[in-house]
Amino acid sequence: MKKLSVVGIGPGNESYLSISAKETLKDSDLIVGYSKYVELVKEYFPEKNYLSTPMTKEVDRCRMALEKASEYNIVSVVCSGDAGVYGMAALVYELSVDFPDVDINIVPGISAVLSGSAVLGAPIGHDFAVISLSDLLTPWELIEKRLKLAGEGDFCICLYNPSSHKRKDYLKRACEILLNFKEEDTICGYVRNIGRIGEEYHILSLLELKEIEVDMFTTVFIGNSNTKVINNKMVTPRGYKGI
Amino acid sequence: MKKLSVVGIGPGNESYLSISAKETLKDSDLIVGYSKYVELVKEYFPEKNYLSTPMTKEVDRCRMALEKASEYNIVSVVCSGDAGVYGMAALVYELSVDFPDVDINIVPGISAVLSGSAVLGAPIGHDFAVISLSDLLTPWELIEKRLKLAGEGDFCICLYNPSSHKRKDYLKRACEILLNFKEEDTICGYVRNIGRIGEEYHILSLLELKEIEVDMFTTVFIGNSNTKVINNKMVTPRGYKGI
Ligand SMILES: C[S@@+](CC[C@H](N)C(=O)[O-])C[C@H]1O[C@@H](n2cnc3c(N)ncnc32)[C@H](O)[C@@H]1O
Ligand SMILES: C[S@@+](CC[C@H](N)C(=O)[O-])C[C@H]1O[C@@H](n2cnc3c(N)ncnc32)[C@H](O)[C@@H]1O
Repeated sequence: MKKLSVVGIGPGNESYLSISAKETLKDSDLIVGYSKYVELVKEYFPEKNYLSTPMTKEVDRCRMALEKASEYNIVSVVCSGDAGVYGMAALVYELSVDFPDVDINIVPGISAVLSGSAVLGAPIGHDFAVISLSDLLTPWELIEKRLKLAGEGDFCICLYNPSSHKRKDYLKRACEILLNFKEEDTICGYVRNIGRIGEEYHILSLLELKEIEVDMFTTVFIGNSNTKVINNKMVTPRGYKGI
Repeated sequence: MKKLSVVGIGPGNESYLSISAKETLKDSDLIVGYSKYVELVKEYFPEKNYLSTPMTKEVDRCRMALEKASEYNIVSVVCSGDAGVYGMAALVYELSVDFPDVDINIVPGISAVLSGSAVLGAPIGHDFAVISLSDLLTPWELIEKRLKLAGEGDFCICLYNPSSHKRKDYLKRACEILLNFKEEDTICGYVRNIGRIGEEYHILSLLELKEIEVDMFTTVFIGNSNTKVINNKMVTPRGYKGI
């Protein structure tokens, strides 16, 4: 049986790599990924074989990795954050039906919802929903519906892919929907370049968030009705008594 | 400035510890936590000072850690999984207003939603909601409301704290609510003892899940309308074309 691992490498800083991810990469004969993440991993394991493909070539990249798994002994596909959260894990499984001799192994990683949360404080201290604003693979109507329902349920909300060149106003549209259910002064935050050079975070109200332009290296957090600011950190209490 | 770190140690297996979590614990003079997690950490760092408190004493535990931070140089509070997901991070911030000389640092970890997802395959490959079924700190009505809305939005759903001695039928009640919105044959899964001795996973339909009794060391996943089984793994496609 040939082995293909799909490895979440965390937000981009070696210190957020899990021990298991590090060992899987160390054991790999070939590492496949989107060029940017391959560059990151190359720093720690310069002596490996690498194959990279551009951003929008996910299907080709995963199929190539499955093909190469028959050639090499151990192949890894790297993803930023977690392998399963808007990552390559599901796609590798879908394509794997044509490669019955390849055994697939998922190595989880610290997804942006968790690494970003640590930077902001404790924004997801209660039930939360994770929603991607990218409508490349999901109809915008469904994204809108999920935003509405998550707003109505007073979930903490974490938004991935909040922006791109073609959809500069998506975060604004998302905030407008949420303002139908959440107060204008709901505490929100966003984190840019988590675990990378230039990491920065901001805490602001939902009304203010609506007017902000963020880039695609940003993860956005919208609090629930109990979220507060403590010492310049965003904190959603779980509800413990006796504080 | 004294330093208090709240450290997510992952599901319980050293291999899921991040490099940053390992180093933070290595640098700590005192490690505080719920007895079970303190036992886990002691295995890797036997020479440290430890303080543990029973399960329901979260407020005491965190206040104690803040007090000790003035005495020791570097104190860590350990949580299973991630520090911010139903962990101690928010509570430490809430209590910290009485300890202005203590600097708080959150070290994220691989939460059960991610480690369990890796065991099952790729169950959260699209937008997802994380909901705790524990009504110790949250009114059951709010939990029910969130289940309804997450079901209506066709989110993938991950349930924490699906059971306890006093609420053996909560998972059944949750499934009954979800069956109003999701098909009976919606693909579901649950994972017990993730990253620990006795790890096991099961994939089944929502109708079958309704009749299952799980324990508190279990995390439950409910798929969306596109979730399928591929090679005995639970896979939620993101929607890539050309497969
Ligand atoms: C295609 S998704 C990949 C998510 C990744 N698999 C994870 O689990 O974090 C890309 C989005 O993740 C978020 N993201 C990933 N890494 C990030 C980082 N280092 N800093 C900020 N946001 C990040 C951003 O919202 C970005 O638009
Ligand atoms: C109080 S919550 C703590 C969650 C933790 N902070 C995290 O991020 O994973 C406890 C619940 O987390 C889930 N959980 C935590 N560790 C687990 C493990 N090793 N295996 C299965 N479920 C786990 C279970 O649903 C359990 O009832």
